Amino acid sequence: MTGNIPTIMRVVEAAGFGLDMLRVVDRPVPQPRRGEILVRLAAATLNYRDLAILKGTYKPGLKFERAFIPASDACGTVVALGPDVTRFVVGDRIIPVFTQGWISGLPTPEMRNGRQLGLPLDGVLREYITILAEDAVHAPLTLTDIEAATLPIAALTAWTTLQEGRVKSGAWVLAMGTGGVALFALQFAKLAGAQVAVISSNDEKLARVRELGADATINYRQNPDWAPLVRKATGGRGVDIVVETAGTLSRSLSAAAFGGFVGVIGFTAGHAAEFDLRQLIGPLVRVQGIATGSRSSFEGMNRAIALHGLKPVIDQVFPLDRVPDALAPDRRRM
Amino acid sequence: MTGNIPTIMRVVEAAGFGLDMLRVVDRPVPQPRRGEILVRLAAATLNYRDLAILKGTYKPGLKFERAFIPASDACGTVVALGPDVTRFVVGDRIIPVFTQGWISGLPTPEMRNGRQLGLPLDGVLREYITILAEDAVHAPLTLTDIEAATLPIAALTAWTTLQEGRVKSGAWVLAMGTGGVALFALQFAKLAGAQVAVISSNDEKLARVRELGADATINYRQNPDWAPLVRKATGGRGVDIVVETAGTLSRSLSAAAFGGFVGVIGFTAGHAAEFDLRQLIGPLVRVQGIATGSRSSFEGMNRAIALHGLKPVIDQVFPLDRVPDALAPDRRRM
Amino acid sequence: MTGNIPTIMRVVEAAGFGLDMLRVVDRPVPQPRRGEILVRLAAATLNYRDLAILKGTYKPGLKFERAFIPASDACGTVVALGPDVTRFVVGDRIIPVFTQGWISGLPTPEMRNGRQLGLPLDGVLREYITILAEDAVHAPLTLTDIEAATLPIAALTAWTTLQEGRVKSGAWVLAMGTGGVALFALQFAKLAGAQVAVISSNDEKLARVRELGADATINYRQNPDWAPLVRKATGGRGVDIVVETAGTLSRSLSAAAFGGFVGVIGFTAGHAAEFDLRQLIGPLVRVQGIATGSRSSFEGMNRAIALHGLKPVIDQVFPLDRVPDALAPDRRRM
Amino acid sequence: MTGNIPTIMRVVEAAGFGLDMLRVVDRPVPQPRRGEILVRLAAATLNYRDLAILKGTYKPGLKFERAFIPASDACGTVVALGPDVTRFVVGDRIIPVFTQGWISGLPTPEMRNGRQLGLPLDGVLREYITILAEDAVHAPLTLTDIEAATLPIAALTAWTTLQEGRVKSGAWVLAMGTGGVALFALQFAKLAGAQVAVISSNDEKLARVRELGADATINYRQNPDWAPLVRKATGGRGVDIVVETAGTLSRSLSAAAFGGFVGVIGFTAGHAAEFDLRQLIGPLVRVQGIATGSRSSFEGMNRAIALHGLKPVIDQVFPLDRVPDALAPDRRRM
Repeated sequence: MTGNIPTIMRVVEAAGFGLDMLRVVDRPVPQPRRGEILVRLAAATLNYRDLAILKGTYKPGLKFERAFIPASDACGTVVALGPDVTRFVVGDRIIPVFTQGWISGLPTPEMRNGRQLGLPLDGVLREYITILAEDAVHAPLTLTDIEAATLPIAALTAWTTLQEGRVKSGAWVLAMGTGGVALFALQFAKLAGAQVAVISSNDEKLARVRELGADATINYRQNPDWAPLVRKATGGRGVDIVVETAGTLSRSLSAAAFGGFVGVIGFTAGHAAEFDLRQLIGPLVRVQGIATGSRSSFEGMNRAIALHGLKPVIDQVFPLDRVPDALAPDRRRM
Repeated sequence: MTGNIPTIMRVVEAAGFGLDMLRVVDRPVPQPRRGEILVRLAAATLNYRDLAILKGTYKPGLKFERAFIPASDACGTVVALGPDVTRFVVGDRIIPVFTQGWISGLPTPEMRNGRQLGLPLDGVLREYITILAEDAVHAPLTLTDIEAATLPIAALTAWTTLQEGRVKSGAWVLAMGTGGVALFALQFAKLAGAQVAVISSNDEKLARVRELGADATINYRQNPDWAPLVRKATGGRGVDIVVETAGTLSRSLSAAAFGGFVGVIGFTAGHAAEFDLRQLIGPLVRVQGIATGSRSSFEGMNRAIALHGLKPVIDQVFPLDRVPDALAPDRRRM
Repeated sequence: MTGNIPTIMRVVEAAGFGLDMLRVVDRPVPQPRRGEILVRLAAATLNYRDLAILKGTYKPGLKFERAFIPASDACGTVVALGPDVTRFVVGDRIIPVFTQGWISGLPTPEMRNGRQLGLPLDGVLREYITILAEDAVHAPLTLTDIEAATLPIAALTAWTTLQEGRVKSGAWVLAMGTGGVALFALQFAKLAGAQVAVISSNDEKLARVRELGADATINYRQNPDWAPLVRKATGGRGVDIVVETAGTLSRSLSAAAFGGFVGVIGFTAGHAAEFDLRQLIGPLVRVQGIATGSRSSFEGMNRAIALHGLKPVIDQVFPLDRVPDALAPDRRRM
Repeated sequence: MTGNIPTIMRVVEAAGFGLDMLRVVDRPVPQPRRGEILVRLAAATLNYRDLAILKGTYKPGLKFERAFIPASDACGTVVALGPDVTRFVVGDRIIPVFTQGWISGLPTPEMRNGRQLGLPLDGVLREYITILAEDAVHAPLTLTDIEAATLPIAALTAWTTLQEGRVKSGAWVLAMGTGGVALFALQFAKLAGAQVAVISSNDEKLARVRELGADATINYRQNPDWAPLVRKATGGRGVDIVVETAGTLSRSLSAAAFGGFVGVIGFTAGHAAEFDLRQLIGPLVRVQGIATGSRSSFEGMNRAIALHGLKPVIDQVFPLDRVPDALAPDRRRM
């Protein structure tokens, strides 16, 4: 164990639901138990999920039960090892896996519901954390701490969606908006030799994604019936993969190619799906719920990131102490 | 060519949309061209699809363009070979493949839209038909002509759904109602060692499917909120595969197991899907449009049918000449 | 913790390589640590792997490093829970998973090489064991302890092979000999509606597998060139799945159907594969190394076993104290 | 039909086995029958397969039965349509599919053995050919006729291997030598964001593939035990996909990553496979026979080629009349 580990750390804690309920408190630095590593966290990222949890709107029936530490995505350095740890050494820079215990294949329902960082497990808005060594991955050497902290949910969800959709060179991918999942989907799709269409309500953001390589961009505010435009951009064939973060399933199906894939991730535009079943049956589309990804997928993704020097798009950065202010109501819109 | 092939045959023709527009007419018996076989049809089966086509309600925007021969499912005997046919010999008992040209893998959009018997291709309500030898399979020796004629749409759709859902011994399958697809799904699921739940509005029919092996039966008229009952029947885990012929996607998702599969086939209860995307995302369900199956799947299915002596459930039988009367309005409900 | 747990237990220990190096010794009963269960073992099974390990022939270069407890397959009852265990309660009857840590999907290389019971982890020839609750499954209620103890390697390997080979009703499966994997493959294949060919050097054993449902049996001593006979039994098409436990890859390929699958498990007849690559290329066969299976597959298999009341075939049973004698040289041949 | 189609065409015909048995003869230009197109061929490519066929060494037991037209890979222009053709119009530039009838999924054994151009079907060393419209694809607009003629076997085999191996951005691919399949595998792997190792006996060729993007190159003449070097180049993990054209299966398995894939295509170094089964079982490798690909895969590949402007590497070009001389013994080594 390195000598300079303090006994007390700062932690951002949610004392209740509501973005004004965050506070910075002191807690003892935990000891790594058998199989665990103690990690000094250097950076954390806030996802849409974190804000929904903080507001109490993440799931129907979600109740506040105890003060908790929010957020799941972070990067840090191993500073101590519990007994029986061989996977890392002190000094390794690591990223915790969002769904703890998910090594490969499908997760179990218990992992999906009970082993996610930020809720129900305490999250990463703190200076130190202990986690099982099996539930972390090496951070890509090509990324800064802040960049590496963006990967666990947004990047891995995008990566998993493209793999489940069997992305190929020459295929078309549709990403929605310019949130984290969409931007990573764009970047990973380009690495894989695919073409990408992006829809957004904001022309500046569309200009930005064109710089990142988007092949077709559509302002859905100006073109509410955007599916035919997406289809036209693909030469009429439709998109092979939809990275469905908005909840616009009917339009996604209309934009999909024969035999295409819709990975359903989010519902920023609402969680009510309404469509005609014939949109699914006629073109033999596959629609599938997507959940971040396993540790094994994470490692594969990191190899791609490191090889290609892919750089995540960073929005805003705050020091840990400033997070409560930064998130307080009327301060921020996501 | 066998000597006793007539030059004129009887054909049931739809002179317009409407169940009263069928008539029996004479037409010349066609000659088999290169690669084709001439088949004397012995039995045909009517599917839900055929009735919808006859009524003109099969697809939005469907227009009557010319008199056509309805129905796709039939069994008959090869009576003559065109040039270059080696796949069959005269005397073979065969079944035409519904989607002509679909040999294996996924069909093409062109096959799916343009190469289906009964529409847009002329169908099987006739005494003789010519088709490409590549687009027919041997009828299982264990089945009568009438039984074999039930396979192309209903049986193969059920078979494909179970395969796409990766049916396993010990898995649970949900079938809806007691139509052809549901009954075949029940029978094939039992052959594969799975358990089957069936929902229906009719207690007599539920008693019947229990005789066929159904492990759990629920009257959805008495239990409109049937999904929790299905789930309870599975010990709480949910069903691994839904053979979704009714169009009740929201309830199907509620009945599905974590990581389960919903094969979307039909919409007897309406084609408007409405559900909460979280029903899909949380349990990582796969939803997929299903289209009968390829010739290669048909052959695999026939091996299972022959091996196990599986017998299709037959409803009513008519001679060809009586089909128009049998289908005339107020005579029949399917 | 239940009151009557002793502090000392009997353990069968290998003091060196060689079947005469086993001895029964006393050791302290371990305490379950965080996430662990303490299990009172009721029955264990010896596999071919265990004997190879005991003889020191399991892997090239295997060296004896320390006294170890052999064997991996067992059934027992949870008698105490370590902190944070929610997966089981005291009194549950469980089976440890052979490859500890393998929950679903593919294992990691680290699991495959370093987390297997019986070597390198201490095994189950003892009265009590502590393992992570995550690394055990409920024993099927339909099985005795002894029967349940046969599942972890032999049954799960057979199950996995059939799943990887996408076993279907009506398919043909080839099993080799009458060892544990082969017998389970036969039983699971029959549950799935498949047909099974078995080869063996012993007519009595072949008579036995016919009673268990084998559809074709071939004495390979009398018919060293057995592949054409297997193919003939399938009507010329070949077998869809080979459960390859013997190491006779060339003959297996000759017996395989176009597009068939060979799951490579063992090498009782030697580990040198020799064949003509055209045997693989022409018929587009898939050949794949197989390793028991994940916890998730184990649970699915147990559902099939319980549903169908499948009973493992038991060979000989010894009390723990008699194991060294039972295995001593010249006492036993496997 | 266009006006200027001659009635007589030149054809290169093999009058027996042996590279000196080719001759240029006149034959009538065929008429397109129902479903067929008449194509004026502009370029053809010779594959390793064609030379083996010409020499009579392609398959054990291959006998010369009649004069035949060799070669399968070509590009040409549609000059006339038979009845019922809608897939192409006169003037379209097309490429015949090597395995005629293979639209998607797996081929049938009948296609694999009986429907391949160049043997047993007459091939493309001629001025005009008729084929079914269903069995051709549009040539990529970005390629010349000669370039397009290289695709049917070499490019599609490489593409299929990478798809079956589930190539991903960040993965490692191993290609053997600098033949057509290897070079296309290199190019497609790079498009998909993968890294590529190439082995060859020739340093100049290795320099050439480095220009094409190879990340690691090894001279196997200087390093006969090349597998550890390949593994080292990947950082110790091994390659995810081997494009196995040489027949060096044992070394390929040694170079493969845990869970990796070996697509077995050819055997330029001999068709006798010899390896230790534990090379397959330990790392859970998948080995699979590979056969070019379906029309549907061909179309997907062509989208990738056109999108990225990928240019095939062309070796030597001859006019049709000069082919016999060019191939005559002592004139050429492949």
